[in-house]
Amino acid sequence: RSLSTTARKTLKIGLIPADGIGREVIPAAKAAIEALGSDIPKPEFIDLLAGWETFTKTGNALPHETVDILRDECDCALFGSVSSPSKKVVGYSSPIVALRKELDLYANIRPVLSVAPEVGQKPTIDLVVVRENTECLYIKQEVQTVGENGKEARATRLITERASRRIGQMAFELALARPRKHLTIIHKSNVLSITDGLFRETVRGVPTLPGVNGKYDTVTISEQLVDSAVYRLFREPEVFDVMVAPNLYGDILSDAAAALVGSLGLVPSINAGDDFVMGEPVHGSAPDIAGKGIANPIASIRSAALMLRHLGYTKGADRLDVAVDQVIREGTTLTPDLHGTSSTTEVLNAVLKKL
Amino acid sequence: RSLSTTARKTLKIGLIPADGIGREVIPAAKAAIEALGSDIPKPEFIDLLAGWETFTKTGNALPHETVDILRDECDCALFGSVSSPSKKVVGYSSPIVALRKELDLYANIRPVLSVAPEVGQKPTIDLVVVRENTECLYIKQEVQTVGENGKEARATRLITERASRRIGQMAFELALARPRKHLTIIHKSNVLSITDGLFRETVRGVPTLPGVNGKYDTVTISEQLVDSAVYRLFREPEVFDVMVAPNLYGDILSDAAAALVGSLGLVPSINAGDDFVMGEPVHGSAPDIAGKGIANPIASIRSAALMLRHLGYTKGADRLDVAVDQVIREGTTLTPDLHGTSSTTEVLNAVLKKL
Ligand SMILES: CC(C)[C@H](C(=O)O)[C@@H](O)C(=O)O
Ligand SMILES: CC(C)[C@H](C(=O)O)[C@@H](O)C(=O)O
Repeated sequence: RSLSTTARKTLKIGLIPADGIGREVIPAAKAAIEALGSDIPKPEFIDLLAGWETFTKTGNALPHETVDILRDECDCALFGSVSSPSKKVVGYSSPIVALRKELDLYANIRPVLSVAPEVGQKPTIDLVVVRENTECLYIKQEVQTVGENGKEARATRLITERASRRIGQMAFELALARPRKHLTIIHKSNVLSITDGLFRETVRGVPTLPGVNGKYDTVTISEQLVDSAVYRLFREPEVFDVMVAPNLYGDILSDAAAALVGSLGLVPSINAGDDFVMGEPVHGSAPDIAGKGIANPIASIRSAALMLRHLGYTKGADRLDVAVDQVIREGTTLTPDLHGTSSTTEVLNAVLKKL
Repeated sequence: RSLSTTARKTLKIGLIPADGIGREVIPAAKAAIEALGSDIPKPEFIDLLAGWETFTKTGNALPHETVDILRDECDCALFGSVSSPSKKVVGYSSPIVALRKELDLYANIRPVLSVAPEVGQKPTIDLVVVRENTECLYIKQEVQTVGENGKEARATRLITERASRRIGQMAFELALARPRKHLTIIHKSNVLSITDGLFRETVRGVPTLPGVNGKYDTVTISEQLVDSAVYRLFREPEVFDVMVAPNLYGDILSDAAAALVGSLGLVPSINAGDDFVMGEPVHGSAPDIAGKGIANPIASIRSAALMLRHLGYTKGADRLDVAVDQVIREGTTLTPDLHGTSSTTEVLNAVLKKL
C-alpha cells in the first residue's frame, strides 16, 4: 500500500479504542468520519483489540492479529488510549509503544493550537511537537541485576543517525509548510553529549544532505535544552513554531504544550510512517472518568482530521476542524474538562451539526 | 566534618560562581550572608574555579583543587551556573554534574514557592521537587558505534535501590515536616517498567523499612507519570506538595515548576549529601544577559538561605527569606525578568536594607 490517494475507492480504517475513555472517544471520531460523505472515499471500519483489558483476557496486550490486519488490510487507523497496571505485571508491555515500532510509525506529530476567539484571528498558541517515535528509552532494553548495595536496574537509550535524520527531515518539511518556518531542536546535550549530540548534529545536518539543494534555506533553526524548553513553553510559548525532539522529551513537551490550550482533551496526534498513519489523541485512558460518558471527543475527532489530511483528504480534514472550531468558539456545548456540562455524545452531535 | 552546628566558630563557604550570570549572583549571595552578623558563625569565603571558561583556560572544567578544597576545608558551598559549549567539545564535561557526584550530593532539593501578596496569606504555589542527583542518565555512560545505517549512540540509565531509597527517605522526611504531608512519586513505569519500576517500588517501600516504625504513617502517597505531572503542574499545581523524581525528570519538573512562580530567577536549590551541602540557583548562566548587571540575585540569596537552614542556622536563613519576601511584595525594586528595571546590585541593596 502507499499513502497516495489516487486509486482508493474505500478507505479501510482500523479502530483500536483500547481502554478507558478510548472506548468513548474513538466511536465519536468514527461517527464524525462517517458524516463526511463524498469528501473522502467510503470508509470501512475494522474493530481491533489491544490494551490492558485485552491483556487480562488473552495474556497479550497487542494480539498479532491486530498488527497483521493493520499492516495487510488497513489504509490507516485510530488508536484510543491504554491503561497501565498499577504494579509491574510480568509479560505486559504497552501496546501503543509496540504498534509504533511494529508499523515503523517513526514520527509522532502533535500540533498544539488554541482556537482564536474570532474567525480569522490568529490563535495565541500555534506550535507542533515533532516527536521521534521509535527509539530513545522507548526501545525498552532494560535489565536488573543485584549488586553489593541491592538491586540495580539499567535501561539503554538509543539514538541513531538514521532515525534522527528522518525525523529531522519530517520536521524541516513541516516547518517549511508553515508561515513562520522556524524549527527548534530540543536536546540535553550538556549532559548527554554523545546521544543528544548525535541527535542535534544530525538534525542540524538535514539542510546539507545530498539532494536537498537549498530547499530548507528559508527555515530558521534554533536549539533549546529540554528543561528550559518546558520553562519557555509556559513563559513565552509564542517563540516556538516546530519543535523536534527525541522520544521521551517529545512525550513530556507535548503534554506541557497541551496544558497551554486548556485541556489534553483538545490535543490530537498522528503516528506517521512512510506507508501508514495512525491517529491518536494525546490524552490517556482517564480511569477517573471512564464509563461516565463525559470524555472530550475533540482530541479524537481532530486526530481523525490529521490522519485524513496526512492521507491527502484535505477537504474532509478541514471540514472536521472547522466544525470543531465553531463548537469551541460557541462555548455552549463543552465537556467538563473545558468547564462545560455536556456529554461526549452532545459534543459529537454539536460537531456533526456543523459539518 | 559533620553537618552539626555545635562546635563551629567560623563557617567556611566555597564560592564557585563559574560562568555567565553566576559571577553576578554569587557575589550578591555572599554579601547577603555577610550581612547576617552574629546569626551565623563568622563566614569565611574561599573562591574556587569551575566552568566553561575554566575549561578553555586549563583544559579542565572542574580542577581537582576545587574538589579537594571543598571536601577538605569547606563546610558548605555556593555554585553559580555553567555555560555549555555550542558544539560537542572533546574533554569537556559539566562540572556541576561532576561535583554532585564527587561530593555524593545525592539530593537536589528545589522548593518552588510563590510569595503571598500579604504577610500571613498562603502562597498559591508551594511545592518541593526532590530530585535524585547522582544517577539516571546523568551517569554519562555513553558510547557511539557505527552500524549498517550510520552512527548509533547509546546511553545507560542507571537506577539503583540504594539511591532510590535514600532519596525516598529524604522525600518522606521533607513531606513529614510540611503541613500537607503529601508525597507524589514521579516515574514513567508504563514504559520503563524495570528502571522506573525499581524507583517507584523502592520509594513506596520506605515506610516499611526496618527502624521506620510507623514514622511516616501520616504521609499520604500518590504517583504521577512524568508527562502528566508536567501537565498537572500547569493545570492544578495545588495538588502537589513534595514531588520525588529520578534525576532527569526532576531537572525538567523543577524548571516547569519555576515557570509557575514567574521567573527561574526566583528558584533556589540545594545539593545535599550526608556531610556536605551546596546551594545553587536553578537558573542557568543566561549568556544573553551576562555582564549587564541585571541578573536576578534572588535565586542565589534564597539558595544561601536554604543552605544555612540545612546546616541548622534557621534564624539566619529565615531573615534572608523574609527580607526577600518583602522586596518582592513591595515590587518597586525588581530585575527585568520580573518586569522591573532594577539592577542586580539594587535588588541586593534592597534586600540588605530589610535585613
Ligand atoms: C501511554 C504511553 C506509553 C504514551 C507514551 O509515553 O508515548 C503516552 O504518554 C503518549 O504520549 O502517547
Ligand atoms: C547545567 C545542567 C547540567 C543542570 C542539570 O541538568 O542538572 C541544570 O539544568 C540544573 O538543573 O542544575
